Amino acid sequence: MQLKDKIRVIEDYPIKGISFKDITTLLKDREAFKATLDLMEEAIKTIDFDYIVGIESRGFLFGASLADRLGKGFIPVRKPGKLPAEVEKISYDLEYGKNELEIHKDAIHNKDRVIIIDDLMATGGSAEATARLIESLGGEVAAFEFLIELTSLKGREKLNKYKVISIVEYDH
Amino acid sequence: MQLKDKIRVIEDYPIKGISFKDITTLLKDREAFKATLDLMEEAIKTIDFDYIVGIESRGFLFGASLADRLGKGFIPVRKPGKLPAEVEKISYDLEYGKNELEIHKDAIHNKDRVIIIDDLMATGGSAEATARLIESLGGEVAAFEFLIELTSLKGREKLNKYKVISIVEYDH
Repeated sequence: MQLKDKIRVIEDYPIKGISFKDITTLLKDREAFKATLDLMEEAIKTIDFDYIVGIESRGFLFGASLADRLGKGFIPVRKPGKLPAEVEKISYDLEYGKNELEIHKDAIHNKDRVIIIDDLMATGGSAEATARLIESLGGEVAAFEFLIELTSLKGREKLNKYKVISIVEYDH
Repeated sequence: MQLKDKIRVIEDYPIKGISFKDITTLLKDREAFKATLDLMEEAIKTIDFDYIVGIESRGFLFGASLADRLGKGFIPVRKPGKLPAEVEKISYDLEYGKNELEIHKDAIHNKDRVIIIDDLMATGGSAEATARLIESLGGEVAAFEFLIELTSLKGREKLNKYKVISIVEYDH
């Protein structure tokens, strides 16, 4: 199965010039969703780590499923104002616009090793911001894993001190 | 294992008088997360249905994992402006405030049977809105499943024409 055949590309969304990768068509196809998780699981199953960290919202879909498959706990990184206990916050640049992310301060303890999951790496801004949140609490990033990598945006260079795994590549 | 022991209750969040059920402590505990999914899976595995529908964002965590476990496709219901193709939209009242939800029009075809998943049922507003979205596209709601039900808010009465499953109950 070619996973790219299951991902719908929508031009000029959310703004002109962006070629949006719509994964809802992949999620809805039970064989494609399973094949995606099989590949994502296989690529990280030998890594030594404690928790899956998923970035809101689409990172939750793959992150929680992988935590379940691999028998790990799941830690959410969320948009501002969503987490009810004391948070660590970070601000970062998006591919289009700005954003903030938060994590519960008590979610990570010293030397906890995490794999950070999201559906897509564009410039790597949200991924790098998430790594900083983890590290500011004393944790370690064992790897990043993305379903989709937009290679021309060079997120991999921004994350060059980390192990970065992606399953499907597009130029942009 | 008592799942309630793994759910953190935070008083007066997001506003005074609300006793917020924080599931991040459950998600982070790998045994509690697995036990939760085991119970949620067991409760729906004999139901005849085609897709899991998960309500953004916390419904994604349980919904995607259950779709994976049961070999079903996953369909997201999202907050406005997140879905890139043509959407059906609905407005509804929250426990505190108002909200809108959207689904891709081509996500549901005539007679598709879905189970709608969310982390928590309060007044049942978002759940009922999601059922209306599904039905407006010709689909059928085989069941609702929630990890948590706040019984005094009587969401179950609002959803009385449907099968409603919850795993953990609190009064409010």
